[in-house]
Amino acid sequence: MRSEARSGCPINAAVEVLGDPWAMLVLRDVMFGNRRYFRELLLGSEEGIASNILSSRLKQLTAAGLLTRQDANRGQRAMYSLTEAGIQVLPIMVALGNWGLVHRNGSRRLRVRAELLRDGGPELVAAMMDELREVHLGSPRPDPSAPRPSERLQAAYERTMSVDAAP
Amino acid sequence: MRSEARSGCPINAAVEVLGDPWAMLVLRDVMFGNRRYFRELLLGSEEGIASNILSSRLKQLTAAGLLTRQDANRGQRAMYSLTEAGIQVLPIMVALGNWGLVHRNGSRRLRVRAELLRDGGPELVAAMMDELREVHLGSPRPDPSAPRPSERLQAAYERTMSVDAAP
Repeated sequence: MRSEARSGCPINAAVEVLGDPWAMLVLRDVMFGNRRYFRELLLGSEEGIASNILSSRLKQLTAAGLLTRQDANRGQRAMYSLTEAGIQVLPIMVALGNWGLVHRNGSRRLRVRAELLRDGGPELVAAMMDELREVHLGSPRPDPSAPRPSERLQAAYERTMSVDAAP
Repeated sequence: MRSEARSGCPINAAVEVLGDPWAMLVLRDVMFGNRRYFRELLLGSEEGIASNILSSRLKQLTAAGLLTRQDANRGQRAMYSLTEAGIQVLPIMVALGNWGLVHRNGSRRLRVRAELLRDGGPELVAAMMDELREVHLGSPRPDPSAPRPSERLQAAYERTMSVDAAP
């Protein structure tokens, strides 16, 4: 990581950390796939991330304050968690997904969640950030009786895929 | 540019083009600074972009369909314009700026516009996209009597800076 920003522009400050395709994909998998361990991130990557690239991006994201690493006891694996700054990358992720939905093709299976997030609007994004705070930071749920956004996304995903699969 | 996407995920599709700090900064300068020529982009860069990097990013962004290059007559310079896909990067730019405003320091002068864009909300972002369509694609203004967003931003910027400079 550079210690000195190249300029005082907030967009530049953001892209110095987030303007890397692999860093964004690692964050995506932590956020949407709840992959918290090196091995999960390595084996679950749709894009086939290489082990040395994953390792360097996890170090960079931790140094930049977007992830924390819980050091493990002997024989246990280290676990990664999003920080508040990491959680607040979600609106950028949604904006990137919106752009990709319109301007690039993709597989139906991988497009469904991005479509749901787009259609859910700012309310769903805010609720998802609350859920990430619960899972990664241990914050209490604002409304314990409301269904979790991840459950809503999963249910809608299964509904869409089963309709697609129907004869 | 890769011809084959690494996966069918829309976030991946977006970061394959936009997950590069210099590509985003070039787009930022075309969008917010209305820099349309190689020399303007090179000399106006706050971050001191190198000539070979600027050249490669302009080629990549053109190949990816975010910019078009109007070929010039002999002795004239080539001019770059945003495409509709390039204009629709604005919400990603705003989301990046919002993140940078909260999680990184920056200079007052370079933060003011990002703050105004954040506070203007989706309505201002949509109006700015209309203005970019007018300037880059030659589309008619939806409401010719309304002040242009760039004028609103510039006026607010000057107001803020003169208040800051007041004794």
